[in-house]
Amino acid sequence: MSLDQVLAHIDADLDNATERLLELLRIQSISTDPAFKDDCARAADWLVRDLVDLGFDASVRETPGHPMVVGHAEGPGPHVMFYGHYDVQPVDPLDLWDSPPFEPAIEDTAKGKVIRGRGSSDDKGQLMTFIEACRAWKAVTGSLPARISLFFEGEEESGSPSLVPFMRDNAEELKADVALICDTGLFGDSTPAIVTMLRGLLAEEVVITGPNKDLHSGMFGGVARNPIRVLSGIIAGLHDETGRITLPGFYDGVPELSDEIRSQWQNLAFDHASFLGDVGLSEPAGEHDRTPLEMIWSRPTCEVNGISGGYEGDGFKTVLPSKAIAKISFRLVGTQDPDAIHLAFVDYVNSMLPADCTAEFPLGHGSAASQMSVSHPAFEQARAALSDEWPNPAAYVGCGGSIPIAGLFKDILGMDAMLIGFGKDDDQIHSPNEKYDLESFHKGIRSWARILAALS
Amino acid sequence: MSLDQVLAHIDADLDNATERLLELLRIQSISTDPAFKDDCARAADWLVRDLVDLGFDASVRETPGHPMVVGHAEGPGPHVMFYGHYDVQPVDPLDLWDSPPFEPAIEDTAKGKVIRGRGSSDDKGQLMTFIEACRAWKAVTGSLPARISLFFEGEEESGSPSLVPFMRDNAEELKADVALICDTGLFGDSTPAIVTMLRGLLAEEVVITGPNKDLHSGMFGGVARNPIRVLSGIIAGLHDETGRITLPGFYDGVPELSDEIRSQWQNLAFDHASFLGDVGLSEPAGEHDRTPLEMIWSRPTCEVNGISGGYEGDGFKTVLPSKAIAKISFRLVGTQDPDAIHLAFVDYVNSMLPADCTAEFPLGHGSAASQMSVSHPAFEQARAALSDEWPNPAAYVGCGGSIPIAGLFKDILGMDAMLIGFGKDDDQIHSPNEKYDLESFHKGIRSWARILAALS
Repeated sequence: MSLDQVLAHIDADLDNATERLLELLRIQSISTDPAFKDDCARAADWLVRDLVDLGFDASVRETPGHPMVVGHAEGPGPHVMFYGHYDVQPVDPLDLWDSPPFEPAIEDTAKGKVIRGRGSSDDKGQLMTFIEACRAWKAVTGSLPARISLFFEGEEESGSPSLVPFMRDNAEELKADVALICDTGLFGDSTPAIVTMLRGLLAEEVVITGPNKDLHSGMFGGVARNPIRVLSGIIAGLHDETGRITLPGFYDGVPELSDEIRSQWQNLAFDHASFLGDVGLSEPAGEHDRTPLEMIWSRPTCEVNGISGGYEGDGFKTVLPSKAIAKISFRLVGTQDPDAIHLAFVDYVNSMLPADCTAEFPLGHGSAASQMSVSHPAFEQARAALSDEWPNPAAYVGCGGSIPIAGLFKDILGMDAMLIGFGKDDDQIHSPNEKYDLESFHKGIRSWARILAALS
Repeated sequence: MSLDQVLAHIDADLDNATERLLELLRIQSISTDPAFKDDCARAADWLVRDLVDLGFDASVRETPGHPMVVGHAEGPGPHVMFYGHYDVQPVDPLDLWDSPPFEPAIEDTAKGKVIRGRGSSDDKGQLMTFIEACRAWKAVTGSLPARISLFFEGEEESGSPSLVPFMRDNAEELKADVALICDTGLFGDSTPAIVTMLRGLLAEEVVITGPNKDLHSGMFGGVARNPIRVLSGIIAGLHDETGRITLPGFYDGVPELSDEIRSQWQNLAFDHASFLGDVGLSEPAGEHDRTPLEMIWSRPTCEVNGISGGYEGDGFKTVLPSKAIAKISFRLVGTQDPDAIHLAFVDYVNSMLPADCTAEFPLGHGSAASQMSVSHPAFEQARAALSDEWPNPAAYVGCGGSIPIAGLFKDILGMDAMLIGFGKDDDQIHSPNEKYDLESFHKGIRSWARILAALS
């Protein structure tokens, strides 16, 4: 049958597929930093050229930010829409990379071959697994097994400001029977996973201003308000001693796990000691009365993602700074309302301000959590196809990260979304030395080839 | 008499004196940043050339860090030693400067002409007031009115690591009857001041490490320890709700003001509303039961001078950082012991560390406060000379900043030190747009000419 031939072709063509991915990884498409705007455009152009070669009717679609890439190809089966993103995270701290982040290479490691470089896992490597599956079907059978639309974003790592307007403006074109999203991971090293529960995200920046300029701490220390001290007090007050978040109303809409999900997750035998041990930690922090898997999949959080103020260089400078800044994010679950939590955060910060201090909130945008319905038959078809490829049967799982696109596909386009990905916990996405296992890439391509066969 | 001729010469030569200062200000002698090592050496060479031209037996004296400049000239009167520093503070944040920090210029402002540029006040402008006074005496009388030694340091803004060893190694050469230090300010705009009470300084850096690398806050947030949150709690706990510092034993050795000093300071009619108002503040922070002048001259403080961790660039990055760092300084008074306070700080931080966090303390060096004895006749001679030059009589005052050299002159060289300077509160030293009033420079030169006459 043709699936076997397609899988054999994928195996034979792996070196070429890897070379294509390395080419895409060399493009420095960091979306959050305006200095890399042209690189983002180059990544979009690269994808369009590749899709056109594959027979897609594909084009770059401009937005006020970085462009979208949209492509369509006819096929016999159902209409599936595949989503990925071609932008990547910043690379700092650069000195912690063992090799340059945009000079990707295949490395032999104790755990097997890996593709090393920024974006190798998140999300260029994952995105290319689907394109390579399409390429293999086309090469072996001359056509695709389904009608396929592709939709690639270039702002996923910078809050997706253009996404909703673009989806609304192009809703008819983007609608399909089901959406496929490849931006998640395996459970453990060998259990394929379909994510059905995704946390939302509210991103905040708070800028505390005290004196109207930087002061000498000898002249003014003790008598002038220090914004770093004020900000520290604000951050310290966001959690109580049991690890709960103190904002009034924060837990409104946070559901308890159903007994069914709780027992399914217990069966997954999550090894939190090794999950934490891999990053140098021994004890779960966070809410005292919750298990680690609950905390990362189904509980809301508040984390400080960055802080700055005053002198940060080598040596010492006796400055009493005018400003201190923190970037703070909330992960949301259930029906927690990002707008309400933004307001509660603003109220809380303002209530903590002493005389002569002001607070600004330049961000404050967010997306709610989403929960997939697994009633669409595609879910069970995909689960069976994944179970054929991997050593363990596929599982429905939660995800601590926030992938707002899944909820938006439902809300704006009326489509259910299946989140299937092949990343591993040690991929170091968003960190120095990001990698994607060559096995993830290879079996990821094979997985999509199987899923396309199963859906059609 | 010759003093009048010297003063007239100073007035006539002011433009040339200013040009010489601008030349020195163009040298980027930032001592705390190793990138500017050669610039520091250039500043030292520049000073030696100028002193040799003036007839001093002057030379650059190498140290493990930036060089010292030492010069000697014979004269009829007592032996005075003048100290200043040629190094300057870093210039960040550069975007807040209205003109480039190392392209100094004379500017007309609403309050009169100012010399704008990094180091104009702290301390190159102040240092040059004394050299110009010597130049005028030499030009008018052909000689100096006293035996003068000059001692210029290039590490004052970076903790003076070479100072004590250099003073010990060269104690015989550096000893004089009295030391003159020009690194302080006027009281208000027109009251000359001799500082007799100086706070000490303990500089700390604390590095909190949690996970062994930066993590994705979606994957690990809530369950992994966040070092920024830990650091914020540590900073928030350093003061209680009345503004007192919480370290055990911190207030050991902090004296209460004598009634005499308290009443002298009350007579100075310190305008704290305008002191704070100039920097955009309306209320004194700090200890609730102390006056602002007490707080900045005679009370110990603890300030955070810088903080950093995680993502600090534009946009947002959902990182959970491995490290968070704060620079914290303590101003010390009376007989507070910097070593004991360093140990109390280390103990406190360690007591606040949750599981899986470690703390490092790369700095932790300090100097105790110093209190001058005003019994040496030079104090009253200088006070009279200053009172002749300025509209108001000179006063003995305290100083919030830390100038450890004064205590070291006493301890190592057995000399009393007179701290006399002409800076103003709005000079923005250590901040963007540093300036020195042309009046400070001009009347500062005239003041030293008078003091040299009075001492001899």
